[in-house]
Amino acid sequence: LASGLSLKSNTVVHGGKGIKKPFTEVIKANIGDAHAMGQRPITFLRQVVALCTYPNLLDSPSFPEDAKKRARRILQGCGGNSLGSYTASQGINCIREDVASYIERRDGGVPADPDNIYLTTGASDGISAILKILISGDGKSRTGVMIPIPQYPLYSAAISELDAIQVNYYLDEENCWALNVNELRRALNEAKAYCNPKVLCIINPGNPTGQVQSRKCIEDVIHFAWEEKLFLLADEVYQDNVYSEGCQFHSFKKILYEMGPEYYNNVELASFHSTSKGYMGECGYRGGYMEVINLHPEIKGQLVKLLSVRLCPPVSGQAAMDIVVNPPVPGEESYAQFIKEKESVLNNLAKKAKLTEDMFNKIPGVHCNPLQGAMYAFPRIFIPSKAIEEAKAHKMAPDMFYCMKLLEETGICVVPGSGFGQREGTYHFRMTILPPVEKLKILLEKVKDFHIKFLEKYA
Amino acid sequence: LASGLSLKSNTVVHGGKGIKKPFTEVIKANIGDAHAMGQRPITFLRQVVALCTYPNLLDSPSFPEDAKKRARRILQGCGGNSLGSYTASQGINCIREDVASYIERRDGGVPADPDNIYLTTGASDGISAILKILISGDGKSRTGVMIPIPQYPLYSAAISELDAIQVNYYLDEENCWALNVNELRRALNEAKAYCNPKVLCIINPGNPTGQVQSRKCIEDVIHFAWEEKLFLLADEVYQDNVYSEGCQFHSFKKILYEMGPEYYNNVELASFHSTSKGYMGECGYRGGYMEVINLHPEIKGQLVKLLSVRLCPPVSGQAAMDIVVNPPVPGEESYAQFIKEKESVLNNLAKKAKLTEDMFNKIPGVHCNPLQGAMYAFPRIFIPSKAIEEAKAHKMAPDMFYCMKLLEETGICVVPGSGFGQREGTYHFRMTILPPVEKLKILLEKVKDFHIKFLEKYA
Repeated sequence: LASGLSLKSNTVVHGGKGIKKPFTEVIKANIGDAHAMGQRPITFLRQVVALCTYPNLLDSPSFPEDAKKRARRILQGCGGNSLGSYTASQGINCIREDVASYIERRDGGVPADPDNIYLTTGASDGISAILKILISGDGKSRTGVMIPIPQYPLYSAAISELDAIQVNYYLDEENCWALNVNELRRALNEAKAYCNPKVLCIINPGNPTGQVQSRKCIEDVIHFAWEEKLFLLADEVYQDNVYSEGCQFHSFKKILYEMGPEYYNNVELASFHSTSKGYMGECGYRGGYMEVINLHPEIKGQLVKLLSVRLCPPVSGQAAMDIVVNPPVPGEESYAQFIKEKESVLNNLAKKAKLTEDMFNKIPGVHCNPLQGAMYAFPRIFIPSKAIEEAKAHKMAPDMFYCMKLLEETGICVVPGSGFGQREGTYHFRMTILPPVEKLKILLEKVKDFHIKFLEKYA
Repeated sequence: LASGLSLKSNTVVHGGKGIKKPFTEVIKANIGDAHAMGQRPITFLRQVVALCTYPNLLDSPSFPEDAKKRARRILQGCGGNSLGSYTASQGINCIREDVASYIERRDGGVPADPDNIYLTTGASDGISAILKILISGDGKSRTGVMIPIPQYPLYSAAISELDAIQVNYYLDEENCWALNVNELRRALNEAKAYCNPKVLCIINPGNPTGQVQSRKCIEDVIHFAWEEKLFLLADEVYQDNVYSEGCQFHSFKKILYEMGPEYYNNVELASFHSTSKGYMGECGYRGGYMEVINLHPEIKGQLVKLLSVRLCPPVSGQAAMDIVVNPPVPGEESYAQFIKEKESVLNNLAKKAKLTEDMFNKIPGVHCNPLQGAMYAFPRIFIPSKAIEEAKAHKMAPDMFYCMKLLEETGICVVPGSGFGQREGTYHFRMTILPPVEKLKILLEKVKDFHIKFLEKYA
């Protein structure tokens, strides 16, 4: 059924049942689960959601006025002023308005229409819904969906579930995982022989690869999508996670507008955001939104119908999303604390991104591109041919074999590159940079020791 | 794409844009949205969720100890003690344990295994997931799914989306919407000619029909499913909503066990529950669970894989579900208030169920079966042939025409029977009994006046 490797498999060997393991703790560096790795929630966000949950607290002097103001506004948007009511399937109106204002601020004034905003159950839900709409109803020739390799496995799973064709384009590892339009063209032209490519998926900043696309690259991609009449699906959930100097997040929407009416009146674009990543890390709330522009009215009707069958996204997740797009502003009581918390998380991540890159590149047989954004390292690892043979004997992909050994010997859980896709004959793994700095250092040292021993063993 | 009428269409005529309407307020009696109709949340549930959301409140003297105890237990089950972490795709362990204990208490000691419990994003999500698993991978002959008529349109929408065959069995309106096994057999035998029927869906208490199945009926259904090797899908989200004297909720799981090992070792059964209905009415939290027994290990593996692509159900919805299955018990501080609030909601609903039945049956040309359970009336309405002709001229189903007229003239929004399915030539609508008693009386008077005028106009 759903193909693609699950990133959060719970079949991890927990060292139990009497078999002594050479580690005391499993470190789950396999999934971008910030709070589970010790990151603290943003106080203001939780205050607002708590106030919405239990409105008696609106009378409590221990909550700040700006949080109460947000909570009252959200509750006014809810039937019976309760988080327990269904909302419109598209989400609460005033939150969609806040999302639109956020996008306008982010994109330097490019207009955003609340009607084009859909609140979702995390970004995954929005991505699956859009793919379902774009893929279904395609009679004869199967729909092709272009995805980057390496990719986030939600895409391969959704494509397989919807019986569409996965069209791979390869990111350029030699060039910091950049997207090259020539490679897009190659992939598209080859795919046209056996399917009908309709959708081009972009992940920026990249997951698992962490690259941040340049303005020029985005322009090239948009021109290509316009030329080839491809629906652009821009997964921008890491838009707040940019660390490298000289890198900056540019939204596809903004660049599309700046390229002029020929582009912004024609190119169909969906962009996704989430409460789960950024500096909030609120994965459990399953909050998210998508902005969809130039969608054909008939397709839009189908989308609304599909979403209405699911009734509505979780309302506390909608509330959490509201705070992400409508945080405290200068002059408000909670502003100072909010900024302090936000910057602490982001500065820490930037520090850990650099640390991880540097430490990986000191290990012989490991190469790691700069972690320009997102929250993962995706180092390339050399696996000796003897190890490859042994992996084959165990009917395992070589990097799966490597990661299983790493887990068994160190308790460190990472995801093999084969779960994301990689060029034939190359091997990688994905590791989050979410553990606290001190723990991350120990973890990286352990990986280093393991890798050196692994090379020796299979030399 | 998704067929089936949406129950929460927002295309209601709101009387705006300068056209004067003969009413001052739209009353949305179309959807089971308790809080939106003024029902108050259960205090204890919201206290626990607020404590989990903002754990600083664990130090506040204004929250009761029993609520804090629940919150601490839930937080201990969360990564980093935060609602913001992903949980296992199947849901938080300790909540699944609480669900299993609840089921054992409910079913008089019949064992329940937390491993068979899956927390879901409302019941709809669980139902869609199970149907997807059971339907997919069926090569040649398309899978048949038996559903009651009238049905809740989630079923028809999911079946159509999954490209399976909807096999209708009709509930017996003359007999209080009872399920008759002979009718099941007729439907199954006819369906075998053109599909491979594999799933039998039951809604008990019924939606939209409100009947509560007798023990005998459930035994007959289980025997039939056993005989015909059908997967039983028991939608039991209204298990707390039983009003008529002499009626009692029996879970399919309990009866299955009581029928002996030949049955309980063989019949595959999934049962669904939700935070949205009952006395809580917490629709917005999108909380729910399913218990699945005798699922084939391979199918179970596919289910876990499917759920893992969606990462996890919203964690505050999981917390809300925990309180539904683990409410205050005698001796605890919050018990008295909890019971008072719970009984107030349920007694009110029982009163409104009787009131609605009585008032509908006083209207000429309307017949309404007893509302034994759930939260809807589904009266049969006589529509004169002149009105049927006019509906046809407008390309509308006659009951859709009736409901549109009702909305335009009274502001009352109900759902036409054709959205749920009904025997050819009969007409109905579904109306919730959620408005407060005084409002409900006015509403029913308005429906009565409208209906009499409608009969006169089209006589």
